[in-house]
Amino acid sequence: MYANILSRVLKKIKPREEERRELSRAAEGILERVRVEAGKTGLDVRGILVGSSARGTWVSGEHDLDVFLTFPEETTREELERIGLSIARKVAEGARWEERYAEHPYIHAFYDGYEVDLVPCFRVERASQIKSSVDRTPFHNEYISKNIKGLEDEVLLLKQFMKGRGVYGSELKTHGFSGYLTELLIIYYRSFIEVLKAASTWKPGLVIDMGGHGNVAPSDPLVMVDPTDPARNVAAALSIDQLGRFIDSARGFLESPAEEYFFPNLPSPLGDEELKIILKSRGTTLIAIIFDAPDIVEDILFPQLRKMEQSVGEMIHRHDFKVFRSDVYSNKQAVILFELEVSRLPEVKKHIGPPFWNKEHSGAFKAKYSGAKIFSSIYIKDGRYIVEIPRKYVDAKNLVKAEVLSCGLGKHVANMVRKGYQVLENEEILAIKDRSIRVFLREYFS
Amino acid sequence: MYANILSRVLKKIKPREEERRELSRAAEGILERVRVEAGKTGLDVRGILVGSSARGTWVSGEHDLDVFLTFPEETTREELERIGLSIARKVAEGARWEERYAEHPYIHAFYDGYEVDLVPCFRVERASQIKSSVDRTPFHNEYISKNIKGLEDEVLLLKQFMKGRGVYGSELKTHGFSGYLTELLIIYYRSFIEVLKAASTWKPGLVIDMGGHGNVAPSDPLVMVDPTDPARNVAAALSIDQLGRFIDSARGFLESPAEEYFFPNLPSPLGDEELKIILKSRGTTLIAIIFDAPDIVEDILFPQLRKMEQSVGEMIHRHDFKVFRSDVYSNKQAVILFELEVSRLPEVKKHIGPPFWNKEHSGAFKAKYSGAKIFSSIYIKDGRYIVEIPRKYVDAKNLVKAEVLSCGLGKHVANMVRKGYQVLENEEILAIKDRSIRVFLREYFS
Repeated sequence: MYANILSRVLKKIKPREEERRELSRAAEGILERVRVEAGKTGLDVRGILVGSSARGTWVSGEHDLDVFLTFPEETTREELERIGLSIARKVAEGARWEERYAEHPYIHAFYDGYEVDLVPCFRVERASQIKSSVDRTPFHNEYISKNIKGLEDEVLLLKQFMKGRGVYGSELKTHGFSGYLTELLIIYYRSFIEVLKAASTWKPGLVIDMGGHGNVAPSDPLVMVDPTDPARNVAAALSIDQLGRFIDSARGFLESPAEEYFFPNLPSPLGDEELKIILKSRGTTLIAIIFDAPDIVEDILFPQLRKMEQSVGEMIHRHDFKVFRSDVYSNKQAVILFELEVSRLPEVKKHIGPPFWNKEHSGAFKAKYSGAKIFSSIYIKDGRYIVEIPRKYVDAKNLVKAEVLSCGLGKHVANMVRKGYQVLENEEILAIKDRSIRVFLREYFS
Repeated sequence: MYANILSRVLKKIKPREEERRELSRAAEGILERVRVEAGKTGLDVRGILVGSSARGTWVSGEHDLDVFLTFPEETTREELERIGLSIARKVAEGARWEERYAEHPYIHAFYDGYEVDLVPCFRVERASQIKSSVDRTPFHNEYISKNIKGLEDEVLLLKQFMKGRGVYGSELKTHGFSGYLTELLIIYYRSFIEVLKAASTWKPGLVIDMGGHGNVAPSDPLVMVDPTDPARNVAAALSIDQLGRFIDSARGFLESPAEEYFFPNLPSPLGDEELKIILKSRGTTLIAIIFDAPDIVEDILFPQLRKMEQSVGEMIHRHDFKVFRSDVYSNKQAVILFELEVSRLPEVKKHIGPPFWNKEHSGAFKAKYSGAKIFSSIYIKDGRYIVEIPRKYVDAKNLVKAEVLSCGLGKHVANMVRKGYQVLENEEILAIKDRSIRVFLREYFS
């Protein structure tokens, strides 16, 4: 039933012999340079290839190589970073490269058509003894390499399925399934279709503990106990909604399988007339905050964009406007999008005062409002004084324009917003011509 | 400080000698007719004058006489009603009269310029042994008559003050202070000013127990233990907000005394241009439901109007419109008034489905909506399926028009609404020319 589809998919995503050979050659070249440069330091530093390229589980066309430089456990952190980076820089010499930062600094190089990460780490005896989270990777590599033999195609199918459904990747932009998690699922369930069958009946709170030695409190939507470190949940980054989307997709595919699950149509940019028609038929008000995106990695940027979405949304709510839906996007420019049920509220607003039995507060409240511009006399309702006063913001766009900087913003985002931002409403949004933002708008409404 | 004002007020509200004499003569005439008619029955039925006219605590100009026909305790309820009404009818003979119903039937007669209630009741030994709530009245009468001597003027002032502030009357339209409660407050605090001074620091939950033998759980906003029946709260009908308004007025009067507290300016009917200006400046939407008022006493009508206000308000709320304020009025026509923050909502509406981990419900939900007219694909948010569907009512007036009869309505009100009703919005309300409804609108906005 599924065989035809899966073999067609596999034909597209499985690296051919030539691609494999080329990748091996590139990897070997880098490892050789590591050996040479490491030898000069007099330290026992070993280069190893890790990740999907090491395990034969990369999808054709990907050109990522993860090379770890493992240092003896007794190395100091300072030495590791200094000598590790120094080796890595020399390995990358001649190629274009840049320094990047995760827990440690590392080198990202563009080498011979490949994107190569050169990552220094500690070589510890057990994964439970790691000094830094990257130290875990060699253990993952070893475990998967040992257990994945013969199941590589199944991993490829599952990865591509997850990519097609937008749930692949454990970075903070996606909150989806990591490559390692995907591989473990295949090792546990033995095939792509069996993973889908199992997933279609998963419930949040499920714990998969392949070694039976797990030690993880199941507070995450899904727990996959790390077979190399029983205290760690491999699926810790997976959000409840991404889990849900995967489960929903699994059910959908099993019911009516189709290649589109793996290769969805790319959404086209939303046109001017289309947006006008959509706005008219929905009857909502679209408000977009736009500013130049800060030049930081997505794992730092996206939590800040989500934070801004939330804090501005709460500010809007405090002013009695109702957010129907919202989303964020970033390319060169960052966009925070709010869809509101109503864009104008009445001039009059209720202000609730103290309970009448508090004589002191009641007196102060009445004194404060008896001379002010109010819409009605001060009255008592449900035991409290109430006064009807003018609303500060009757227009949602003006509210957002005026109050966005008073909202809780992450450091980098705040810096950029302070430099300048635009607030656009409904058809004003058509001033944005950026193709990728128009694609984002299409996806928002699809 | 207050003396001048109070003596001016008293001059206006205290019955003169002639008014007293006339009232005595009228009461004596009625009691004599009761004696004659009761004598014919062979039963020991005695007529007594009760209420403010019996105690010298009526406000000048009021022409109410409450005459109770007391029957021996061993009379059956059937006999009491039959013979009691028969005596009352004969007493009222020659006058215009009608039968009315509270717990028992009684006769209301228009007699010689007075409105006379002729009420049959049981004559029991103690107030705690009453068979019907009207049996209590003779005990109240006796208690007040005994204790009020010399304090009548203070009662008059307090009653008039409460009338001026809209908190006098324990009927279900008002939920305010009864005449008996007013008299007890004066007996307890000894003067009008002392009642106000005490009230200005009252808090809900206060229990006043003059006999020190109270047995009332203080769940009401104010408890005044009935000195003739320690298990009864004389202030049971008083609502928290009417208590609050009295307390607020007491503080206000003590701070800057003025005759207006007793005799407020009568509000004038709201004019067409005024309503237009008010609506424009507030920016809200006014919706009025109008129908012919059922011909029932206010104590039955007003709870039904309030019930309608509440059930229609909840219906409006369920459809995502927000009620800013509401009120009811009744004269010949009944009016339920809603002031809404917004009168139009977007076409699109979120419909929240089952959590994704419920496979069966999820399947049914997706099947139901995959063919339907929807605004977006079905998506997952916060663990649940969501679909964006067309809103049934985007216009508040249409909503109210269509759904008013599906709301919970009291029996008499439902009958009248079924016969016909109008729903008017904003300036359409100007079609109502009834003067008293225009006064109600003035008060609503004041």
